[in-house]
Amino acid sequence: MKYNENFEKLPKSYVFSQMAQKIADKKKRGGERIINLGIGDLKLPLFECSVNQMKIACEEMRIEKTFKGYPPAEGYEFLRQKISNEYIDNFISVAPDEVFITDGAKGQLGNILELFGQKSRVLFLTPCYPAGAEANILYGNEVTFLSGSQENGFFPSPPYGEKYDVIYICSPNNPTGSCMTYEKLGEWVNYALFSGSVIVYDNAYSVFVSGDFPKSVYSVKNANKCAIEINSFSKSFGFTGIRCGFTVIPKSVGEYNRLQKRWLGCRCNGVSYISQRGAEAVFSRIGREEVKRRVNFYKTNAEILKIALKNLKLWYNNTVHSPYVFAKTPHGVSSTEFCEYLLEKTSLAVTDGAGFLTGGEGYFRLSAFLPREDILETADRLERIDLGEIATQNR
Amino acid sequence: MKYNENFEKLPKSYVFSQMAQKIADKKKRGGERIINLGIGDLKLPLFECSVNQMKIACEEMRIEKTFKGYPPAEGYEFLRQKISNEYIDNFISVAPDEVFITDGAKGQLGNILELFGQKSRVLFLTPCYPAGAEANILYGNEVTFLSGSQENGFFPSPPYGEKYDVIYICSPNNPTGSCMTYEKLGEWVNYALFSGSVIVYDNAYSVFVSGDFPKSVYSVKNANKCAIEINSFSKSFGFTGIRCGFTVIPKSVGEYNRLQKRWLGCRCNGVSYISQRGAEAVFSRIGREEVKRRVNFYKTNAEILKIALKNLKLWYNNTVHSPYVFAKTPHGVSSTEFCEYLLEKTSLAVTDGAGFLTGGEGYFRLSAFLPREDILETADRLERIDLGEIATQNR
Repeated sequence: MKYNENFEKLPKSYVFSQMAQKIADKKKRGGERIINLGIGDLKLPLFECSVNQMKIACEEMRIEKTFKGYPPAEGYEFLRQKISNEYIDNFISVAPDEVFITDGAKGQLGNILELFGQKSRVLFLTPCYPAGAEANILYGNEVTFLSGSQENGFFPSPPYGEKYDVIYICSPNNPTGSCMTYEKLGEWVNYALFSGSVIVYDNAYSVFVSGDFPKSVYSVKNANKCAIEINSFSKSFGFTGIRCGFTVIPKSVGEYNRLQKRWLGCRCNGVSYISQRGAEAVFSRIGREEVKRRVNFYKTNAEILKIALKNLKLWYNNTVHSPYVFAKTPHGVSSTEFCEYLLEKTSLAVTDGAGFLTGGEGYFRLSAFLPREDILETADRLERIDLGEIATQNR
Repeated sequence: MKYNENFEKLPKSYVFSQMAQKIADKKKRGGERIINLGIGDLKLPLFECSVNQMKIACEEMRIEKTFKGYPPAEGYEFLRQKISNEYIDNFISVAPDEVFITDGAKGQLGNILELFGQKSRVLFLTPCYPAGAEANILYGNEVTFLSGSQENGFFPSPPYGEKYDVIYICSPNNPTGSCMTYEKLGEWVNYALFSGSVIVYDNAYSVFVSGDFPKSVYSVKNANKCAIEINSFSKSFGFTGIRCGFTVIPKSVGEYNRLQKRWLGCRCNGVSYISQRGAEAVFSRIGREEVKRRVNFYKTNAEILKIALKNLKLWYNNTVHSPYVFAKTPHGVSSTEFCEYLLEKTSLAVTDGAGFLTGGEGYFRLSAFLPREDILETADRLERIDLGEIATQNR
């Protein structure tokens, strides 16, 4: 029997699967209730407006006259049009036929590489969410990591003189929370144009961007000639359990828009009509207000976590563009060790920075996607930690 | 910019996209209302029991206490357990952790090949639904077609002496409607075991199997050592617009069950909770009765179509295991030509057999997934055809 040998190049289990295992083990050992600040999943429910529209969509499926069969593989026009309008409202020109509805960003980070073909040279700006890199490794691509660091705000500068086919950038970044400035993003766009690369821009956290920072890769000049933007409804609209996202492939980025349509023909039958109606609802006035409320809620959560870290004198990345807080372990303790310590001593589950590829070692990520009482309880437990104890253990 | 060169090996557009274009063109030219017997999409609505459960699932998403975030990547236990039970009721042992919930069979026919890796030698028994073959071509695999014919009931015998890594079999077959006998399937299973191949068994039409024919590849001895079974809720349960299916990977088929779990870790975030609740409902008593009713309805449709073809003295594959009727063009006319003739003269859209890879040329496929009045109208229009005219044109 033949196997994809590239599986052997992956870590034995996916970072979030590993975490789930550790949490399960800890649960067995008993102790305080575990608060899971690890995975970026949601606890707060779906928006009312989405639930209402989805129930109507279910009803439409009940009778022959309004029943919907196969969705258009590229997504329903009603949703692609709404997304196009959203870009236009932000002074970015994206046509409905440049928008592809997907079942979420995670799958899309890997599916997209079938457009580029095998043996692509792919650059990842790290630390970052590992799914895209693992998908590339499985596909047999030549994957290179370029790490950001505290010094450069976790976004490195382009490696002038080197050439890659594809460059993955995630901003606002998961896990660091850093958001590219127009200037930095402009550097990368120019580098991509100059070297003939395509940027795959993971924009899953775009609604968290505050102030004068790019909310889309296309807000930088000429990005529509070299960038594909992958987005999600998951984090912004409470959609983790619904599976709906979108990808923008401008017709001005080589042949990829045409190839994506051909790819859909044989590889995909589209996304549930009901999910798409739920997604459409978030573009209503009520939906937009709910997004704002939710984003503010998560950001306040993040601020509460930061205060606790500050009191503990732990370094954290002080950005305002993200539902995550990225912090440094004390006394140079390894991140795996510190995360295990936290879980054992405080029953707080946080994500090991080392799971986010190069540049993540020595850091850990806290998710703010939790009800307020869990965040307050987390802050309490964090402040109980005796960092001296860790220093002693680590001597 | 780098492109996947394998796109050039595919037909310029996918067979069903081509058809949609021809139908749109014909519409512009006017004439009788077009009846689309081309694509295997449904017109009859979703089952009541599924709609009801899905609405309840939507309501659960509304409040924090019952809200569901990321689904388990392999599917919810409640659904995997139901599917496992269904196999066990048919005396086939499939454990819940051998069942993977997917967003449908089409994507899965291609996704699965990431387990085998690149440069796999893949055999397709043709004619067959082309998505799996196109996915393999895009992935750069070495694809071989082995055609069935009228003489062997559209299922060829194994090519003893040759060796393939993967063998795709679709039974009941789309488009021919033929169903493998236990004996023929046993030959293929033994061949696969002997040559170390894996069978990918496309079982999307399993509910249409009548009488003493295999309803699953695993009803043949030792298939659980060499076969992966891909199934769908689409055709059986009215799910084309919902996107839910499942794949069975027994733990006894090499390492594939473990690899699939690892694949899910980085490539997929699972299937909508709401879709899975809708799928679960079809395993209820009411759901099962509805399946029976629906299957009988479509089979009667197929019989009506056959009578019309018989009156027209056209050869058709006289099987009872399928919602499709596979018929031969008259006077050796090419299938593309005959399908265009039908669309032009009778406003009936049927699928060109040549779109189903080798062995399909000279045949056309009629779908019975239509309301009764459309099927009766189709029969009427078919009987109006003057085959003599075609013979003259073709001289």
